[in-house]
Amino acid sequence: MSDKTSKPGITRRDLFGVAAGGAAFAGAAGAARIAAVGGATGAATALSLGSAQASTGTEASLAPGQLDEYYGFWSSGQTGEMRILGIPSMRELMRVPVFNRCSATGWGQTNESLNVLTENMLPKTKEFLAANGKKIHDNGDLHHVHMSFTDGKYDGRFLFMNDKANTRVARVRCDVMKADKILEIPNAKAIHGLRPQKWPRTNYVFANGEDETPMVNDGKVLDDPSQYVNFYTAIDADEMQVAWQVMVSGNLDNTDADYEGKYAFSTSYNSEMGMNLAEMTASELDHVVVFNIKEIEKGIAAGDYIELNGVKVIDGRKGKNKNYTRYIPIPNSPHGCNMAPDKKHLCIAGKLSPTVSVIDVTKLDDVFYNGAEPRSAVVAEPELGLGPLHTAFDGKGNALTTLFLDSQVVKWNIEKAVRAYAGENVDPIIKKVDVHYQPGHNSTSMGETLEADGKWFISMNKFSKDRFLNVGPLKPENEQLFSMQGDDLVLMHDGPTFAEPHDSIIVHRSVVNPLSVWNRQDPMWAKTREQAEADGVDIDDWAETVVRDGNKVRVYMSSSAPTFSLESFKVKEGDEVTVIITNMDDIDDLTHGFTMGDHGVAFEVGPQATASATFVASKPGVYWYYCQWFCHALHMEMRGRMFVEPRS
Amino acid sequence: MSDKTSKPGITRRDLFGVAAGGAAFAGAAGAARIAAVGGATGAATALSLGSAQASTGTEASLAPGQLDEYYGFWSSGQTGEMRILGIPSMRELMRVPVFNRCSATGWGQTNESLNVLTENMLPKTKEFLAANGKKIHDNGDLHHVHMSFTDGKYDGRFLFMNDKANTRVARVRCDVMKADKILEIPNAKAIHGLRPQKWPRTNYVFANGEDETPMVNDGKVLDDPSQYVNFYTAIDADEMQVAWQVMVSGNLDNTDADYEGKYAFSTSYNSEMGMNLAEMTASELDHVVVFNIKEIEKGIAAGDYIELNGVKVIDGRKGKNKNYTRYIPIPNSPHGCNMAPDKKHLCIAGKLSPTVSVIDVTKLDDVFYNGAEPRSAVVAEPELGLGPLHTAFDGKGNALTTLFLDSQVVKWNIEKAVRAYAGENVDPIIKKVDVHYQPGHNSTSMGETLEADGKWFISMNKFSKDRFLNVGPLKPENEQLFSMQGDDLVLMHDGPTFAEPHDSIIVHRSVVNPLSVWNRQDPMWAKTREQAEADGVDIDDWAETVVRDGNKVRVYMSSSAPTFSLESFKVKEGDEVTVIITNMDDIDDLTHGFTMGDHGVAFEVGPQATASATFVASKPGVYWYYCQWFCHALHMEMRGRMFVEPRS
Repeated sequence: MSDKTSKPGITRRDLFGVAAGGAAFAGAAGAARIAAVGGATGAATALSLGSAQASTGTEASLAPGQLDEYYGFWSSGQTGEMRILGIPSMRELMRVPVFNRCSATGWGQTNESLNVLTENMLPKTKEFLAANGKKIHDNGDLHHVHMSFTDGKYDGRFLFMNDKANTRVARVRCDVMKADKILEIPNAKAIHGLRPQKWPRTNYVFANGEDETPMVNDGKVLDDPSQYVNFYTAIDADEMQVAWQVMVSGNLDNTDADYEGKYAFSTSYNSEMGMNLAEMTASELDHVVVFNIKEIEKGIAAGDYIELNGVKVIDGRKGKNKNYTRYIPIPNSPHGCNMAPDKKHLCIAGKLSPTVSVIDVTKLDDVFYNGAEPRSAVVAEPELGLGPLHTAFDGKGNALTTLFLDSQVVKWNIEKAVRAYAGENVDPIIKKVDVHYQPGHNSTSMGETLEADGKWFISMNKFSKDRFLNVGPLKPENEQLFSMQGDDLVLMHDGPTFAEPHDSIIVHRSVVNPLSVWNRQDPMWAKTREQAEADGVDIDDWAETVVRDGNKVRVYMSSSAPTFSLESFKVKEGDEVTVIITNMDDIDDLTHGFTMGDHGVAFEVGPQATASATFVASKPGVYWYYCQWFCHALHMEMRGRMFVEPRS
Repeated sequence: MSDKTSKPGITRRDLFGVAAGGAAFAGAAGAARIAAVGGATGAATALSLGSAQASTGTEASLAPGQLDEYYGFWSSGQTGEMRILGIPSMRELMRVPVFNRCSATGWGQTNESLNVLTENMLPKTKEFLAANGKKIHDNGDLHHVHMSFTDGKYDGRFLFMNDKANTRVARVRCDVMKADKILEIPNAKAIHGLRPQKWPRTNYVFANGEDETPMVNDGKVLDDPSQYVNFYTAIDADEMQVAWQVMVSGNLDNTDADYEGKYAFSTSYNSEMGMNLAEMTASELDHVVVFNIKEIEKGIAAGDYIELNGVKVIDGRKGKNKNYTRYIPIPNSPHGCNMAPDKKHLCIAGKLSPTVSVIDVTKLDDVFYNGAEPRSAVVAEPELGLGPLHTAFDGKGNALTTLFLDSQVVKWNIEKAVRAYAGENVDPIIKKVDVHYQPGHNSTSMGETLEADGKWFISMNKFSKDRFLNVGPLKPENEQLFSMQGDDLVLMHDGPTFAEPHDSIIVHRSVVNPLSVWNRQDPMWAKTREQAEADGVDIDDWAETVVRDGNKVRVYMSSSAPTFSLESFKVKEGDEVTVIITNMDDIDDLTHGFTMGDHGVAFEVGPQATASATFVASKPGVYWYYCQWFCHALHMEMRGRMFVEPRS
């Protein structure tokens, strides 16, 4: 028997009612959806860009064998990985699994990666996964990748990134380009905007909670929005532990930090704390929250916090008359939050307002300490076009803002915008360039640092439409690389991308110096090393040892092209088998792999690395293991047998 | 207490003993390993190619907005997915998850994909996965992608591919570019080489079992190689079920079929049935197995088979004096197996022999029916260089063979090789070109069909070494695109690729015509539709219904940018919740997604598609779901709440 109840939802009529009720913006939204399939628009703009390319076609491509000048570090949205591109070639050089599972490297399967994925997981999440028969989540939603800073410049140590889907923050080590820490954030929901502290160095990583929920989300409060809150999180970047949180009014979208180490900022598109589309877009003014880092640190030191799930939480909500936060009113649903390399101007993109609001961060002391009106820090608010989302900088006083609805990028001058706002008759807009189509984030080479060099510009577009061969109902996005030549943006390349890069940074190659061979003492396999030592096995030498410990069997072996040091081993049906491989090869690019046939077990073992995986051998018989990472002319012969003896 | 036993394995000394003991080839192997890090080699060849590129740089890149002329369908090795590239731009247009889990699309998580992944899974595998707390394997090893044929030409219906890791074969529908069938193969182990029947059409897909095991692999026989066998599998390509298998002597590596529908062929690198490297490479002659399709079909019809795990198995081992198979001796460890578009010549690459053996397939009738010596079908055996692996064709009588150890591609003329073999003083080698580095597979545009057009050549190289920016210990591979201009191969592009493309096909865009919007009646969600009908829900209309069925709750809703039709729903702690989404948008490129925050649940819902996922809601509280596939300016506001009521 099944009983059935119809829920009051949004009907088709209501839905379009909402779309049509969203003030001045709504018509444009409608237009955008038409433009999204408008061949005419596409054709016209494709033509103009096509000819631009014709004159400069060669500049976008490097000759084979030439190295790119810049690394591109890319988010991948719901794919959950980080990507490394070469700029300007736009070639994808590497995928780094972070929140996703990776069949190739065994990320999410090796004991070493499981340590990273679970060591900072909340108890409640472990219970949930157990109830669902899993050890880790199947997905992530990685929106923002940013590098650690020292004195406002990239320092090449770490990359930090968020998981909106499962409220996590990860750190990738730039020496080996692997995630070494993944932290689940308590209290907050849906970590979205993320930025490292720029000055004096990245002591904190700032992370926005986008979704509002009851402060203690244990089911006692469900459908009472008045009791919902949001959380801003500061993470100790060295320890990768939550340092403190701030409870705020309204939700949080994107964030950035200043070049003085005094303030951090977050946009809020849902200051209304609305629970549906109509409520979220109701008011004409939302806000930017300004966080006063030193006052918050003082408040924590003074004990002015509540402890919530082991985290010190400061109350920074509106009207608390404390110096922890200020709320600066900003036109409709501000989204992008970008600090200019002039150390002075913070650019807030309006999204549902055609404006970018420019905040002079040197005026914030007055707002906090001298009773100045929050809006007094706004020194410009140019009208740039429909759907401004994000702003990048050329290091020459200019800003480049994506216009989602207009499918354009607008280049404008910040000082002129300030002068216009002060009443002077001057137009800050330098140029508008069509992009294909519906741009979201953008980035410029070194553009979020004091070393912004204004050489390359990336527009990350949400729709590709007619730009590529049809590959079925699911289409790639489209990223476009522009060469910044004087006031011009010259299109060099369309880069189709799998779902879905949200953000990117372009880092000069001089900043990044990865290893080619692992250090044998790397902490990545410290726990594995401890177990080996307890088993009396030296994994730094040619380990070829099988250790039985009750029904647990640990199989230690080495790899050196084209052989494993154990050509066979024997276990019993039902044994829990852990295979530990050390790659003795110390040759650049000589990665090995271990795949146990018909057991769904496979992982990477880099030069001089140790890696392991555990499974229950439930099938009596002969199973071959093999090296799946091409290593040698006799690679295919690099295999051996596991004998599984029947129990009876 | 743990008792510890040291196993006799290969010691360091033995290991190099093996490497040095591999006959003429071994020295070269050693050399290859040095070359693998030889800066000198790299520099020299990079230079020559760099200048080649300089003169033709623009030809490799299309102007933005221009479409590629060819689709490239790519394997991804241990990544487990299929990739779609554009040729000549070498841009990755789409990733199609097949044997891997995909965080973005929910492949391996949605009920619809789980149907595909499990419906043809062997019972023994289901038991194993249950014992390991899993529903599906975490990995795949996809080596070969080939399209269905009609009359020796691509017909644009399906793509077929293997999983070596877990002994599976998959089919991808070219109309939607999604896998619709995944078949686990009984008896055989490690499906490696795979090819569709070329003539008269693809009735069969032929699949090689690479690893030898006891015929009944249940643990009764373990370390007695004399009882090991290998299996060749013919799959009914329309039904995606095993049609029959042939038991063979020696293992099986790569396979291909003729243009007459009479014969199929497999190389064997381990005719010795050796159990370690030294034994596998011991003999100077291995073989190609020729399968006589009509005789095998007759034998099956006549009942001359044994039934093994539900499959009809013909005994085609050596010395059975039947017309099912013939074994043609071929020099050391043949690997590549490629049928030329001249309908006559089959090219077998020697790997450990510097030769390619050319078999005239029109002579095979004599071998089967007139007692001709098997080697009498060999009409040429040119010495081409060290480590020949695979051969591609230009449709003009020439062959291009990769030389793994020499890091070269050699272009040679088949007829001249035949004349030379007959004693004429003629050199078949036209040209050798350096590639970077250690090439494995190669492919030419339309090259494995009767429409081979000789325009583009891809060399898929196993090492990239100095070709790209350093991205850490794990390096990309390198694929190189060449324009075929007269006798020249002009390098156009280096394409770094994540682990590890093994093989590719280059298909003219006129052959492939995918949909942009799903057909509402697509079988992909037929089971979901049945459940909805049982629940009295019309998923083709604006479903917004919650059905409770004991502790199972089915939540039906629709998506249309920028809203879900249900803005909230309520379940109880411990309920098994299934969320079913139908995307009502029928706009090209307007894919939606569904992510349930903090529940590790996320999936794609294409235009007009239905998709669903199931989880246990064990955490009381408020959880937001959101659309993670960018759809609209108000995409971020496209979210709703799940209320989980506490049990008590």
